[in-house]
Amino acid sequence: MSESLDIVRTKADLRARVRYWRDQGLNVAFVPTMGALHEGHLTLVRAGLEMADRVVASVFVNPTQFGPNEDFSRYPRQEELDAALLAGAGCHLLYAPSVEEMYPPGFATTISVGGVSEGLCGDVRPGHFDGVATVVTKLLLQAQPHVALFGEKDWQQLAVIRRLVRDLDVPVDVAGVPTVREADGLAKSSRNAYLSASERAIAPVLYQVLNHIAEGLRQGGVAADLCAQGRARILEAGFISVDYLEARGADGLEPLERLDRPARILVAARLAGARLIDNLAVEPGHA
Amino acid sequence: MSESLDIVRTKADLRARVRYWRDQGLNVAFVPTMGALHEGHLTLVRAGLEMADRVVASVFVNPTQFGPNEDFSRYPRQEELDAALLAGAGCHLLYAPSVEEMYPPGFATTISVGGVSEGLCGDVRPGHFDGVATVVTKLLLQAQPHVALFGEKDWQQLAVIRRLVRDLDVPVDVAGVPTVREADGLAKSSRNAYLSASERAIAPVLYQVLNHIAEGLRQGGVAADLCAQGRARILEAGFISVDYLEARGADGLEPLERLDRPARILVAARLAGARLIDNLAVEPGHA
Repeated sequence: MSESLDIVRTKADLRARVRYWRDQGLNVAFVPTMGALHEGHLTLVRAGLEMADRVVASVFVNPTQFGPNEDFSRYPRQEELDAALLAGAGCHLLYAPSVEEMYPPGFATTISVGGVSEGLCGDVRPGHFDGVATVVTKLLLQAQPHVALFGEKDWQQLAVIRRLVRDLDVPVDVAGVPTVREADGLAKSSRNAYLSASERAIAPVLYQVLNHIAEGLRQGGVAADLCAQGRARILEAGFISVDYLEARGADGLEPLERLDRPARILVAARLAGARLIDNLAVEPGHA
Repeated sequence: MSESLDIVRTKADLRARVRYWRDQGLNVAFVPTMGALHEGHLTLVRAGLEMADRVVASVFVNPTQFGPNEDFSRYPRQEELDAALLAGAGCHLLYAPSVEEMYPPGFATTISVGGVSEGLCGDVRPGHFDGVATVVTKLLLQAQPHVALFGEKDWQQLAVIRRLVRDLDVPVDVAGVPTVREADGLAKSSRNAYLSASERAIAPVLYQVLNHIAEGLRQGGVAADLCAQGRARILEAGFISVDYLEARGADGLEPLERLDRPARILVAARLAGARLIDNLAVEPGHA
């Protein structure tokens, strides 16, 4: 696509653009991203176009949600390509602030969400969801959209964002958008770029294991047993380690033993230098 | 005054009223309070009328900013009288939500502001400023006013709110309004109602001490020495204890030794069952 996309880099410019649209009675959708865009992000943009008249995407690799030994510095950055992809998908504006614009000197505020942020990625990545909650609140209050779209691939993140938007009365609708997958089932992720060809061939085992556990739960199996088997299978396939593999209540993310309510199976595992996550819905009574 | 005042009790009703005004191009000021209104609060309302076309006040005794041994349950509540006082001052709407409206089941989010919330009341009342930061953010995002007014009597609270509004990009202007005092200098406070007549006669020593320290700082005195003297004088006057008496930088609330920048002297002390606070500005070069 050869369309060009307007880029703003300050919250003042962002607000001016959104206000101009709102004053015309147009609805605005917002898609926050960390860039390195793939089909999953573009699906968010397209879903935004279904829900609103204008779509704003942001690209900001947020330092405060990375731990000291995580991949902040090597996280892929490709703004020109991202802008072209967004334009091609029909996005109307890109907001790409600097770290200094987001966190000026003296910045001192942290938002913590209890409950849904505990366990899973919250245990493995201490402080991660505080960083996410704080930056997402900032982005939502900077952009002031009618609706904000997030991928279901980051299911726990989506639960944290739903909780904080409700708890803080942020005036925005939150929409979750289903995970986009490769043909072999691997969830699309910017971190898939870290995989070699042989690692890439191993990666789909995550999705296979999620489906296997879903099937087992629907047949009355015990979550802990199914997850223990799944964990072994992931390690046998060649992953270095499994951060977690658990079945939880779909909304509150409370632990569960059997499929007695709508559930979500969630996994995070390390394959060479990449930490991959995925999750799958499983509903009772749909055997 | 015999005017009546509209009262709304849900954020949905509040937002509908504010939206109606905003859609007409009217500017809205917001005055959050814990009720038990006195001249200080009414001064905030009158200042709001100077800045905006409509003034909304809220009355909500926020449980999360009280410690377990503090005065939440006995904090004075007098909604009818408050509504009459607000109407008399020209306020257009009272928002008086229930605890359940503000904190529905599952509520799990906390906002923490570092730096300015440390020391002073932050040390004496652990968790207090988290409670303040969280409820004020909620109220601001519920009401969505153009400007919000806060009393300078709670100077550290005002610094915390300024910081969080800046840090989270809450789209509102924050205005501080000077402390209103009794004829003898005592800062107006809902907690003055806890004082007996003889305690009330002692209370103005706080303001006298603040002025004495300000004078000493302007003459080149050392803050720690002046505050030690002031502390002794407050105790001699009959206060039970002094939680703190300190000179700080006016905006960042950093400790200071001498008057080398705009400063604020802050005090909290206990007189019988009442904890009273006050503060005073002192500027270099105005001897």
